[in-house]
Amino acid sequence: MTIHKSIPHQRNAWYAVAMAEEVTRTPLRRVILGEPLVLYRAEDGTAVALEDRCCHRLAPLSPGKLVGDCIECPYHGLRFDPDGTCTFIPGQLDIPARARVQAYPLVERYGLIWAWMGDAAAELARLPDWRWAESADWAVRGGYFHIKCHYALSVDNLMDLSHIAYVHSGTIGSASDAEKAVIDTLSEPGRVTVRRWVENQPPSPGFQKRFGPDPIDRWQLIEFQPPCYIRTFKGLGKGIYGTAGFDFTSAESDPPEGALSVSRGNTCITPETDGTCHYFTVHCHHGPVPDEEADQAWALAAEALAEDVLILEQTQENMELDPAKRMVFIHFDEGVEKARQAMRMAVKEEAS
Amino acid sequence: MTIHKSIPHQRNAWYAVAMAEEVTRTPLRRVILGEPLVLYRAEDGTAVALEDRCCHRLAPLSPGKLVGDCIECPYHGLRFDPDGTCTFIPGQLDIPARARVQAYPLVERYGLIWAWMGDAAAELARLPDWRWAESADWAVRGGYFHIKCHYALSVDNLMDLSHIAYVHSGTIGSASDAEKAVIDTLSEPGRVTVRRWVENQPPSPGFQKRFGPDPIDRWQLIEFQPPCYIRTFKGLGKGIYGTAGFDFTSAESDPPEGALSVSRGNTCITPETDGTCHYFTVHCHHGPVPDEEADQAWALAAEALAEDVLILEQTQENMELDPAKRMVFIHFDEGVEKARQAMRMAVKEEAS
Amino acid sequence: MTIHKSIPHQRNAWYAVAMAEEVTRTPLRRVILGEPLVLYRAEDGTAVALEDRCCHRLAPLSPGKLVGDCIECPYHGLRFDPDGTCTFIPGQLDIPARARVQAYPLVERYGLIWAWMGDAAAELARLPDWRWAESADWAVRGGYFHIKCHYALSVDNLMDLSHIAYVHSGTIGSASDAEKAVIDTLSEPGRVTVRRWVENQPPSPGFQKRFGPDPIDRWQLIEFQPPCYIRTFKGLGKGIYGTAGFDFTSAESDPPEGALSVSRGNTCITPETDGTCHYFTVHCHHGPVPDEEADQAWALAAEALAEDVLILEQTQENMELDPAKRMVFIHFDEGVEKARQAMRMAVKEEAS
Repeated sequence: MTIHKSIPHQRNAWYAVAMAEEVTRTPLRRVILGEPLVLYRAEDGTAVALEDRCCHRLAPLSPGKLVGDCIECPYHGLRFDPDGTCTFIPGQLDIPARARVQAYPLVERYGLIWAWMGDAAAELARLPDWRWAESADWAVRGGYFHIKCHYALSVDNLMDLSHIAYVHSGTIGSASDAEKAVIDTLSEPGRVTVRRWVENQPPSPGFQKRFGPDPIDRWQLIEFQPPCYIRTFKGLGKGIYGTAGFDFTSAESDPPEGALSVSRGNTCITPETDGTCHYFTVHCHHGPVPDEEADQAWALAAEALAEDVLILEQTQENMELDPAKRMVFIHFDEGVEKARQAMRMAVKEEAS
Repeated sequence: MTIHKSIPHQRNAWYAVAMAEEVTRTPLRRVILGEPLVLYRAEDGTAVALEDRCCHRLAPLSPGKLVGDCIECPYHGLRFDPDGTCTFIPGQLDIPARARVQAYPLVERYGLIWAWMGDAAAELARLPDWRWAESADWAVRGGYFHIKCHYALSVDNLMDLSHIAYVHSGTIGSASDAEKAVIDTLSEPGRVTVRRWVENQPPSPGFQKRFGPDPIDRWQLIEFQPPCYIRTFKGLGKGIYGTAGFDFTSAESDPPEGALSVSRGNTCITPETDGTCHYFTVHCHHGPVPDEEADQAWALAAEALAEDVLILEQTQENMELDPAKRMVFIHFDEGVEKARQAMRMAVKEEAS
Repeated sequence: MTIHKSIPHQRNAWYAVAMAEEVTRTPLRRVILGEPLVLYRAEDGTAVALEDRCCHRLAPLSPGKLVGDCIECPYHGLRFDPDGTCTFIPGQLDIPARARVQAYPLVERYGLIWAWMGDAAAELARLPDWRWAESADWAVRGGYFHIKCHYALSVDNLMDLSHIAYVHSGTIGSASDAEKAVIDTLSEPGRVTVRRWVENQPPSPGFQKRFGPDPIDRWQLIEFQPPCYIRTFKGLGKGIYGTAGFDFTSAESDPPEGALSVSRGNTCITPETDGTCHYFTVHCHHGPVPDEEADQAWALAAEALAEDVLILEQTQENMELDPAKRMVFIHFDEGVEKARQAMRMAVKEEAS
């Protein structure tokens, strides 16, 4: 049983396919769920996603030029409008009905371009809610990373708070509070939440520099929604646990009054092929914070991701050496396993 | 249905395997139709092609040395004559009858080395007729290119005149005459011809520089013969269409009197593996033309080929992402499709 | 029938997996028989080999740190002792019985680390006997090489003395004595020996420089033991053939009195994947010889190996082009074929 077969891809869902600034009037090719997409912007700035494979002779459209809102095949000049309809065939008046390429419903939100990959009607409501990424109250940074592993391995990585003290011991991890942490996992239909908090403990070295040596409360909440959305909600403050109106159980809870630092991470991990994925992440710092501080926090997050990538890619290699290899579960896997279960449920529902 | 399965390789045919100057007394390895060949010259200069895989332990012969007309296996010293017969086994007088490697009938013509890849007797008459490549009336240039696509994609490319205005808009293409062009396709057993002519139209920018702004006639004829031979016959002149004795319907027609420029392209696209091919082409300019002009024309042709390669290799990638993907035919595909049909017919005949 | 299928790997055997000096307190990853191993030393210096794939989420252990004699998974901090038992799971007191990784019995001998890859109890007696590699009477040099071919091709190479005059004509080969050599092959259960001697012949150019032009006797004995051990025993001397007490039939025979030069090569060729192998070799020069001379002999052996690798890797390519391709046997193959037969017998015995 390969990891691929045990966790097939859900199709009727929004997948992040590009950073907004990657999509311009110069067409961009990107493979998503094994399909070639070409991404570009119409003249009014609307992002367009078509199959990057001309219906005629299967040439890529992405090296072609834009003619108004249409893309012209670089091979024989067929033109396709943003709906994927062929509007022009050189020297031929009659355009066959089959002359079209797949068009993917797109939406631009949170600094990302999202494509709906399934046959069912695209439902805007199924986009993850990252509204803080569009709020002036938050300092927003984000980026795109390519990882040579199955997307589920990368989801595992985010759903699992226990790896931070090990993989990230040189960056964002802190072995000191690992022992005092309380962790629980909440599972609802279509959502898995892992909560971790540490009450009244000395801050980790990095936080001591910023906030002094006094004991603090620290919380981290990670939430998964199929097919591949992860929200993290983190913060710290002095004596803040138990503050009226502050709800640890929801990634959407408003930041508590008097917190020292609050941030939200928002990630979509989009399958490229069975052994590779695209990692899009938007990091939000509750403000006001100086630009420099937001930049530093983002740089640290990117550095930590590079630490993960090393492990993830070698894990993928290990799985390919023996696709039938079974895992042993430990108590920290509750969130990871429930997230995988939610993935499988979502695929099963789609199939029924 | 992969492109490979829909168009298998014909075996009883001549395939170009090297430029004549590539084959010397230093053996050359080249994979043809999935088989390793070693190419070298006998002492009298005759080219030899043997299986580059010793019958003994399957070592390559190509790193071995030549002993007279024989090649000596670099591993254990077995020697093979140009017929593939083992003539010497170190320390062993009795040579088993099975001790031989495949020998491929070769012929050197048009600056190329051609190998007969099938089991049937090699028929010299089945070599394509490119006699102008050996005539003093023509200035001849040629080259070898490696392309990472199935050979049929590259044949498609040559059989299809409509792509020139798009892929080659920066080099040899001209959008201006695309609309006025008349195209027809002739299909006979074992031969498909696409003819295209433009009568009394302003020349393309490149030609204006050389011949002035007056309207001219321009003709292009492309002919395919299985398994993978393409001849193109092109020219332009003032008021030349309808000249007595000039036959647009044959690539072998003599150049008409008073033409401004006449050239013939001769190409053999030899399968290497299912996803790669060797592209051999010989470009003939009707003379007399200055060497420099022939060089420039050839450099332009090579530049245009590089433009094709970009599209062809990404098309191959697209096909590998979904080998079952169907194509949509347009009217310009008549020649391409008839050429593919001719390929399939030739393979079918060979099998029967 | 692929080479892989015709010669499966024996598992209950010792395989060299690293040079002793490669294994330190910095863990080393190496793939052996398709399995990922991590190699390191315990605090007392004992070498340890564990599966380089954590039982928990299949992450590699090799980027992890050592905690005493244990290795800590870099992903989630699980610790494994040298027996592969999980001794620590962060934040979890109860350790499941299944929480373990494969531990491989190891032995350090002859400057190499050897791993027992099978399920049966490791038998120290089945280690090959290279005791001269540990004797002060011999000058010892050794090295590790990676070759992109099936391990059996590399075994063939060593078992076959006839290739030396060809592959190594520029280094250790000598065509001159090829004709006068007498070769025979001895086959016993679990051992195949090829002997070659040349009596009273002029030495090869390299030896003339060292020992003068007078005729000498030269002997070479190569012995194979499954799964992949090869010992060679070589020497030369004046009028030495027939010396009382000198036994040409055994690689373990004491060097004869009055020999000019005696050396023993000891090689283990360990499968990595179906198309790649690890080559470990220990070269022993009977002493006393100056260090410089031993260094030179070793450098020459390494140069000769590079000549073999070129041929072996292209042979592998040839086999992959047509896995069904049959070989033709010649008389020199007796040793090679008997060695392959011994390999197959050993695998068959293991399976029964």
